[in-house]
Amino acid sequence: GFVFALEKRGYVKAGPWTPEATVEHPEAVRQLHREFLRAGSNVLQTFTFYASEDKLENRGNYVAEKISCQKVNEAACDIAREVANEGDALVAGGVSQTPSYLSCKDKTEVKAAFRKQLEVFMKKNVDFLIAEYFEHVEEAVWAVEVLKESGKPVAATMCIGPEGDMHGVSPGQCAVQLVKAGASIVGVNCHFDPETSLETVRLMKEGLQAAKLKAHLMCQPLAFHTPDCGKQGFIDLPEFPFGLEPRIATRWDIQNYARKAYDLGIRYIGGCCGFEPYHIRAIAEELGPERGFLPEASEKHGNWGDNLSMHTKPWVRARARKEYWENLKPASGRPYCPCMSKPDGWGVTKGAKELMQQKEATTEQQLKELFQKKKF
Amino acid sequence: GFVFALEKRGYVKAGPWTPEATVEHPEAVRQLHREFLRAGSNVLQTFTFYASEDKLENRGNYVAEKISCQKVNEAACDIAREVANEGDALVAGGVSQTPSYLSCKDKTEVKAAFRKQLEVFMKKNVDFLIAEYFEHVEEAVWAVEVLKESGKPVAATMCIGPEGDMHGVSPGQCAVQLVKAGASIVGVNCHFDPETSLETVRLMKEGLQAAKLKAHLMCQPLAFHTPDCGKQGFIDLPEFPFGLEPRIATRWDIQNYARKAYDLGIRYIGGCCGFEPYHIRAIAEELGPERGFLPEASEKHGNWGDNLSMHTKPWVRARARKEYWENLKPASGRPYCPCMSKPDGWGVTKGAKELMQQKEATTEQQLKELFQKKKF
Amino acid sequence: GFVFALEKRGYVKAGPWTPEATVEHPEAVRQLHREFLRAGSNVLQTFTFYASEDKLENRGNYVAEKISCQKVNEAACDIAREVANEGDALVAGGVSQTPSYLSCKDKTEVKAAFRKQLEVFMKKNVDFLIAEYFEHVEEAVWAVEVLKESGKPVAATMCIGPEGDMHGVSPGQCAVQLVKAGASIVGVNCHFDPETSLETVRLMKEGLQAAKLKAHLMCQPLAFHTPDCGKQGFIDLPEFPFGLEPRIATRWDIQNYARKAYDLGIRYIGGCCGFEPYHIRAIAEELGPERGFLPEASEKHGNWGDNLSMHTKPWVRARARKEYWENLKPASGRPYCPCMSKPDGWGVTKGAKELMQQKEATTEQQLKELFQKKKF
Amino acid sequence: GFVFALEKRGYVKAGPWTPEATVEHPEAVRQLHREFLRAGSNVLQTFTFYASEDKLENRGNYVAEKISCQKVNEAACDIAREVANEGDALVAGGVSQTPSYLSCKDKTEVKAAFRKQLEVFMKKNVDFLIAEYFEHVEEAVWAVEVLKESGKPVAATMCIGPEGDMHGVSPGQCAVQLVKAGASIVGVNCHFDPETSLETVRLMKEGLQAAKLKAHLMCQPLAFHTPDCGKQGFIDLPEFPFGLEPRIATRWDIQNYARKAYDLGIRYIGGCCGFEPYHIRAIAEELGPERGFLPEASEKHGNWGDNLSMHTKPWVRARARKEYWENLKPASGRPYCPCMSKPDGWGVTKGAKELMQQKEATTEQQLKELFQKKKF
Repeated sequence: GFVFALEKRGYVKAGPWTPEATVEHPEAVRQLHREFLRAGSNVLQTFTFYASEDKLENRGNYVAEKISCQKVNEAACDIAREVANEGDALVAGGVSQTPSYLSCKDKTEVKAAFRKQLEVFMKKNVDFLIAEYFEHVEEAVWAVEVLKESGKPVAATMCIGPEGDMHGVSPGQCAVQLVKAGASIVGVNCHFDPETSLETVRLMKEGLQAAKLKAHLMCQPLAFHTPDCGKQGFIDLPEFPFGLEPRIATRWDIQNYARKAYDLGIRYIGGCCGFEPYHIRAIAEELGPERGFLPEASEKHGNWGDNLSMHTKPWVRARARKEYWENLKPASGRPYCPCMSKPDGWGVTKGAKELMQQKEATTEQQLKELFQKKKF
Repeated sequence: GFVFALEKRGYVKAGPWTPEATVEHPEAVRQLHREFLRAGSNVLQTFTFYASEDKLENRGNYVAEKISCQKVNEAACDIAREVANEGDALVAGGVSQTPSYLSCKDKTEVKAAFRKQLEVFMKKNVDFLIAEYFEHVEEAVWAVEVLKESGKPVAATMCIGPEGDMHGVSPGQCAVQLVKAGASIVGVNCHFDPETSLETVRLMKEGLQAAKLKAHLMCQPLAFHTPDCGKQGFIDLPEFPFGLEPRIATRWDIQNYARKAYDLGIRYIGGCCGFEPYHIRAIAEELGPERGFLPEASEKHGNWGDNLSMHTKPWVRARARKEYWENLKPASGRPYCPCMSKPDGWGVTKGAKELMQQKEATTEQQLKELFQKKKF
Repeated sequence: GFVFALEKRGYVKAGPWTPEATVEHPEAVRQLHREFLRAGSNVLQTFTFYASEDKLENRGNYVAEKISCQKVNEAACDIAREVANEGDALVAGGVSQTPSYLSCKDKTEVKAAFRKQLEVFMKKNVDFLIAEYFEHVEEAVWAVEVLKESGKPVAATMCIGPEGDMHGVSPGQCAVQLVKAGASIVGVNCHFDPETSLETVRLMKEGLQAAKLKAHLMCQPLAFHTPDCGKQGFIDLPEFPFGLEPRIATRWDIQNYARKAYDLGIRYIGGCCGFEPYHIRAIAEELGPERGFLPEASEKHGNWGDNLSMHTKPWVRARARKEYWENLKPASGRPYCPCMSKPDGWGVTKGAKELMQQKEATTEQQLKELFQKKKF
Repeated sequence: GFVFALEKRGYVKAGPWTPEATVEHPEAVRQLHREFLRAGSNVLQTFTFYASEDKLENRGNYVAEKISCQKVNEAACDIAREVANEGDALVAGGVSQTPSYLSCKDKTEVKAAFRKQLEVFMKKNVDFLIAEYFEHVEEAVWAVEVLKESGKPVAATMCIGPEGDMHGVSPGQCAVQLVKAGASIVGVNCHFDPETSLETVRLMKEGLQAAKLKAHLMCQPLAFHTPDCGKQGFIDLPEFPFGLEPRIATRWDIQNYARKAYDLGIRYIGGCCGFEPYHIRAIAEELGPERGFLPEASEKHGNWGDNLSMHTKPWVRARARKEYWENLKPASGRPYCPCMSKPDGWGVTKGAKELMQQKEATTEQQLKELFQKKKF
């Protein structure tokens, strides 16, 4: 949830989504880590999403002074460790998909990008490693192979739905390949809502069982409701990224997700874009009985709203119970808006057509080719 | 927006809504001030909502160690000033309605509560004063009278809608009374969405014009869409306070609000519950031409989404324009939920009826009396 | 409900909405009368809506052979009487607003149009008379004056909402003028949903009481939900007239309306556009206890769905009870559609702007003038 | 569409849904046939749905005088033929699933029920035969076998969705079995909306192609939007049958369906429950170019609303074009209602649980057994 949360706080730019804030505004990153720690996280992931050198170069030109890839990654490690030491949490170093792969660079080059980040993680001695947000299992496998060079445990999550990766590899097959490459934890992150993400992890679990492989399961969905998105997830929804508010999950939606994830056998239960500290607290509260304790931030929260029993109005006090919040179907207050959207995509959008004109591509096929050739 | 934002970050308890975080977790309060400053605020209001002594005593028993009213207010002033000095902002000390008034204490006693907070504000030398979140104009007038003793400028906002205060005084009449009591800025805060709040301020403006009085106008609405709420505002909506997510305003909703507020002649334009830093940035960006500059946080934001022109997918790049976001009707992703709710209230709710049974009140009238007598 | 019902059955043309079907397809008109009679109507109104000579001439050119105004009105009377004799119902002759009035013809000319229809009604000896669907009380008064020449009882309904007629005369004032002109029954028909129509009649009742006048009250709302329409009613909604389906009232909505109408003191309770026979049956069933009998068509209907107790599936049988249908919030099955629309109107629509271009009107004002001058 | 249309007109009882109206009120049935003929139907199907002897006995006890199965079927044939002769249409005799099959009677007995109806159809010399509304392909095959004894062409439709029949036979397999049994036209009717029904027919077409069989395709969906229903179709939706109004298809929805059906290769394109004459006209208008003529009822209808060009208001005239109606997303006017519902079913409903208590079934399994044994 760092990228979206810090975008709303004013420290990350939507579009590039890069994490130079670790250098520019460490206090903001530190504070967000602290809030997640208080909310019950026992892993603090370094804020190194899209922090590979090729990505930072590609997108980084809006940053006033040039900030090196190494500095961004080092600062991220330092901040995470500093806050982890305030409580009882592990630090995980994270890598994500690279522009090098998308622009068809070869395995050596792509692996070099991951290795550059890994060097920082080793120097800073993180506790374990995560390869996350991969749309293609091939690149994820390369990432896992690099991270395994460290000897540390590796988790790997893909940003895919039940239909599988962008080359059509099924979730089950993705999981099998990742475990074979050395991941001891596999699952999904981002792109889909909790319900869809759980279904994808279920398919991964089935794939592993069929292949007689063992691994821990991990789930980090969006905190947005996206029943209407297509294969590529919430990015294609017309509301992405600046009109997603009506889709934000309530704390009760997340408690529900946490329980279902646990029941499915998932033990690394977290969240991605849209997650704020109170969503993580909801997971920690739902699984309080299993963990044996409540997070610090629950001092400021009642179980299923029971703190409302102190409200002045009797009908608000009457909301201080589980049954109320569990059954509430919250209204949007937006009577002129629909409930679902049709996702954009090739050939669907006016925007794509306008681009075709600008780019002298006269057919959709040419547009796709232009896109695949990274001509724009 | 402090109370709701810090509730989500894990530092304020919904129900009591008191601001002991200024003492318990000053770094969290400081960081939120910083984010609002970066987003374009030129007033930092001390986080002293519900920080009168009677309120803190009334509700404070869940706080581990007893924290005095004075400490809470002093810390709030110090943090606000510290951050204000990082930029170019004023500090405003704020008071809000008191339990003493609601439990029918007399004028002297209620005024004493305000005076206690004012002493801290004077000692800490805030730049001006705000009396906010009053449901009864009578109490607001008392607050203004106390604050005026300081000689500093006073702003006064009520949490009312177009139907007026809880005793039936119209917005126009409320404005007149507040200006006569000494307020140089009047308006509304909280309880209603931007559209409704603007209508209330419009009525206040009309009232002042009719009475040939002059004052600056101020508006601090919710960042929630609440077209369906009744006279008492969003508190009576079934979603309050833990299911309001689908109602959260987008940045574009807020740009729209900022423009309308400006056009109505309002010059103190802000927000209340639900406002996050990016909402304030939206106001600052919309009014950038009038102010002559953009806020610092706009470094991480493009005008009307133009930063999306760097996105990898052409149909997302096609969203990098004002017309797109202005016309988007965002979907909720919640097809089983309605768009509007019926507000709760006396006699409406099962909860109220259950309470009647518990409390041996056998008629709704008795329930109201019990409530008014503060028997529960 | 004749115009809309026969449009769906293929006998009336939307746009002109004229009733030449009485001559062209008497069997279709007869059958619809029969269905309403069976459903519990005790008044059969001649299908003479928009059957004034000026209207038929104005619009009638699409009818293959020229059918005279007199023939249309006579056939309407004959059919209504024939069916009324099959049961125990009265026949009412009806007139409605005229193009002559809208194009600013004088009182004499407008009255002549009504008188022409009245002559047929007298020849055919209808039981009483109705002046309905008037947007301007001035014209309605003229109609009542003409109809009163017959010596028969006269009812008068306007197609207005709580904001009053198109010249700004309030509902209360409209009622007063109509009663003074001789109407013994006054109320509203068409343009608004049941809830809004009841509010308008309530205002009429208040106006009459204030003026110490007595009259029976009448209500004939739409069978469409239109909470979102403006002063001119459902015609300005973007769905009018071919996309209104999702707004159609259920039988339970209409039972609810019938009870509220009765409780408000209304004793002439019916419906307008959108009403089908089963809606009228719903009124007759709700008011069965008051009337002392059920309509014939109730042989094919159970009270509050109790006929479902014969269904094969237990969960459908479980719907055979009042509480179920009373509380059901029916879904639209249209997740990509909103709940409310913004009404069209002057200056709002692209269509109006296109017309301006076609018509050489360069300002909205000119367009309005063109419209008022009936230049197109 | 006869059953639902005549229910609304007051001649059919929901729950039993039997067609004794052919004897009791032939004029009402005749008029509805006429309307469909005028709307463009070139097949008039005898109103003999659920008119097998076992069904009429089972349900018929609410009918005042006992009306024999033979009389109901004969009257249905006579009325259909009489109206068909007014235009240029064929008469099809129809049979549907029987209570005998559902209560596990053997093949001989079930076939006897169909044969009894077939005798009437032969005596009255219908043009061809339809076996429709079968949930189990086994019974549908038996019906086709009986109907084929006549030597006349036979069409067969099942009320299934893409998941197949109630015993789990896929749509493709159902089609193959029906064609092998002698049907020359196969497809679906009822239970699902146009979009879902087209998908089912597509699967049938694939099944036939794979089996190298040839048959004409037929589609008769609901005129209700039901994206949210489960395997058993709209009957399990909470709105069935008395709250379906917001789901009713517009004429434009049906034009869209007609085009898609035609493009899929379907040549018998019609509708089932919810279809009114204007929906059939929409099919006939959409396929006017292919058929070479428009239906009679199009005299009272403009192409894509062009009759609105005669409306008085310019912004309504601006709706007289295809683009407008094609793109309209009609609002429901029901802001307190959701867009989708969760279907009822075994174990889901309170109602089912209540029945369990009444019926001394203590487990869901027992309830299912009771149901299967037809104990209630």
